[in-house]
Amino acid sequence: MESGIRELEEKGNAVKAASKKLAFLATEVKNKALLNVAEALIAGQNEILAANDLDYKRAQAEGMSEAMLDRLKLSPSRLEGIAQDTRAVAALADPVGEVYEMRTLPNGLQIGKKRVPLGVIGAIYESRPNVTVDISVLCLKSGNAVILRGGSEALNSNRALAKVIQQACYQAGVPQGAVQFIESTERALVNNMLKMKGAIDLIIPRGGAGLIKLISENATMPVITGGIGVCHTYVDRSGNLERAVAIAYNAKVQRPTVCNALDTLLVHSEVAEVYLPLIAREWARAGVEMHCDERALAILKPVPPLKLVAALDDDWGKEFLGLTAAVKVVDSLDEALAHIDLYGSGHSEAIVTEDYSAAMRFLNEVDAACVYVNASTRFTDGAQFGLGAEIGISTQKFHARGPMALKELTSYKWVIFGSGQVRP
Amino acid sequence: MESGIRELEEKGNAVKAASKKLAFLATEVKNKALLNVAEALIAGQNEILAANDLDYKRAQAEGMSEAMLDRLKLSPSRLEGIAQDTRAVAALADPVGEVYEMRTLPNGLQIGKKRVPLGVIGAIYESRPNVTVDISVLCLKSGNAVILRGGSEALNSNRALAKVIQQACYQAGVPQGAVQFIESTERALVNNMLKMKGAIDLIIPRGGAGLIKLISENATMPVITGGIGVCHTYVDRSGNLERAVAIAYNAKVQRPTVCNALDTLLVHSEVAEVYLPLIAREWARAGVEMHCDERALAILKPVPPLKLVAALDDDWGKEFLGLTAAVKVVDSLDEALAHIDLYGSGHSEAIVTEDYSAAMRFLNEVDAACVYVNASTRFTDGAQFGLGAEIGISTQKFHARGPMALKELTSYKWVIFGSGQVRP
Repeated sequence: MESGIRELEEKGNAVKAASKKLAFLATEVKNKALLNVAEALIAGQNEILAANDLDYKRAQAEGMSEAMLDRLKLSPSRLEGIAQDTRAVAALADPVGEVYEMRTLPNGLQIGKKRVPLGVIGAIYESRPNVTVDISVLCLKSGNAVILRGGSEALNSNRALAKVIQQACYQAGVPQGAVQFIESTERALVNNMLKMKGAIDLIIPRGGAGLIKLISENATMPVITGGIGVCHTYVDRSGNLERAVAIAYNAKVQRPTVCNALDTLLVHSEVAEVYLPLIAREWARAGVEMHCDERALAILKPVPPLKLVAALDDDWGKEFLGLTAAVKVVDSLDEALAHIDLYGSGHSEAIVTEDYSAAMRFLNEVDAACVYVNASTRFTDGAQFGLGAEIGISTQKFHARGPMALKELTSYKWVIFGSGQVRP
Repeated sequence: MESGIRELEEKGNAVKAASKKLAFLATEVKNKALLNVAEALIAGQNEILAANDLDYKRAQAEGMSEAMLDRLKLSPSRLEGIAQDTRAVAALADPVGEVYEMRTLPNGLQIGKKRVPLGVIGAIYESRPNVTVDISVLCLKSGNAVILRGGSEALNSNRALAKVIQQACYQAGVPQGAVQFIESTERALVNNMLKMKGAIDLIIPRGGAGLIKLISENATMPVITGGIGVCHTYVDRSGNLERAVAIAYNAKVQRPTVCNALDTLLVHSEVAEVYLPLIAREWARAGVEMHCDERALAILKPVPPLKLVAALDDDWGKEFLGLTAAVKVVDSLDEALAHIDLYGSGHSEAIVTEDYSAAMRFLNEVDAACVYVNASTRFTDGAQFGLGAEIGISTQKFHARGPMALKELTSYKWVIFGSGQVRP
């Protein structure tokens, strides 16, 4: 613990110092660094894969689940994918230095905002070693230094990846110390890291709900919380039912393990008898289990063969992360809105409707990061939104909301060009 | 304490519920409410002034300083000023509902950001009762509900003002409960308020450094920190010295008690012998005391009559809030930048120069909310920047930096107009 605290302090000081130079590093140097990293991931793959193998075998011996083992595993093709993502970030526009809202005041002062990095990003994450690269790359491109703290189960993999990143980017001219990797793995050290307000400007947690809760409750610096999605799709009485089937099917089935997948289907009572059997048959073919309220159950019971269960109270507001959906019949748009207000997590919500006023009310009144009319909630994603990359999906309102990419890792300063002005 | 906690809980629930309706209240209703408030401040002035008189007399009896008593004092002309400010906010554009960055993706999805309120703003403030009105008015205009917690020394004044605001705005159609005023004044209750993460979305502290520190260290929700300004003006070797005198004079003397006033003057050694006597004579006439480093002292000692003191270590980085300035001679722009990096508070910094490259380096490298070339730091202010109003000046990078007004009290949601799109 002693040596871990010393490591945190030393690396915290080093990363803060590096961040001040990194903040105004030329775009071409940052891009060169990222291309170097992509190349080094391939050139150094033997070393990386050997380190990953150590982690994998230990985790296997300790009985880690297949799903978790799969997250931990690196391979030549996965490394090639990570390198490709790194090249894609190099090709994106540099957010730093953009000057906007520039104008001339009546007194002749020219005043505007200039985009600047946040400073030092602290990343605390679990299992997936690719996060080591993803976060480093997005931070470097946006001019932020980064201090990484991965889980002990991926220590060898993360250390090997961090070493490759450090060498490749320092060689290109990135200030020494801009990428720090914490080697000490004592769990209690996370709390020490969360107290380093002077060295770390923002914490990004990546992992399960437990990790995110721990961090958001204990961090002394700002945290981006997100990643938890309890998503509803509401089929209005005026909805095009064919579209509504395609949308609810896609939202539930296309990738059920992620945060923007459908959790609860709300259906207006005027269309429930026609619509529910249509979607239920499609879902059944994909293996979806439906947790239905009484009215939905009454409609669906005569439609075999379906996986039907009577919904329990805690099905509403549950993030299933799998092939399960809660289903409820409502009598009005107001009832749907009230349900979403009560049970939604502020992530992604959709309405299927041909009624203009219902669409506008839904967009206006639903309080979520992303609100859809006639589309699948699965689109909530930085790349899908055209941001080129994604460091996470924020469900908070402060600073940034929804998919976060390079611009969301920046702040601004006011720049003022005068010619001797004084305040009267 | 028990009843105070109950009051906090009840009012926290009420303000949260009201915020959900307030979020999409029509602009004309909000404007009508603010004009009502302005009118009611004048119509109800007898009651308000009588309440203020109670506070004033008690504070006087308890030996409050003249400066503090002056902050506490309301008068018909001060109320007229507050009413006028309220009308000015009513006349500003409504930030809520603005849709921006709207575009059509290749798959036909139309996607953009829609500006929305943050929700509930918690204000914790000291002495000045006008803050009760200022903050309520800015929150209402930006669609935010507000829960107010003023200091015990202004309880009667704040309560009377809050009552006037509540009646005036509910009468115009603002949802009941949107403006809450905490009557319990136990100091320990602040800590309870700082734990109300579910009810309060953002805390704005207004008061001394002690209050701001207490709040930023203990709040569980986001806090806007700011208001502390250690501001430097650097006179470069190429600076126009006549301008440099006007700018440093204005920055120190025009209103010395505020956060954007000059604290430290840095002067390049090549111009120090000419410049320092010029500014020193002007400052001396205004009563400015100069805390000088050795080289500045050597230059200024032969120039009587000046108020000169040898600077101590803690003069660098001190916010004087009065007619005192620290003065230091530096040998280069780099030395000036390093000094500002070490001692600045990230508020407002200025360079006086005719050297293009020095100006660009200063703008680029100084890490502060507002960076000036050839102008007084006194301009750092929402009204001066053309924002129409100001709820505070942020010295943090997260969410908003520098003067904060209506737009800075908002977040956004992504709105997506589809026509049946699903993710491939």
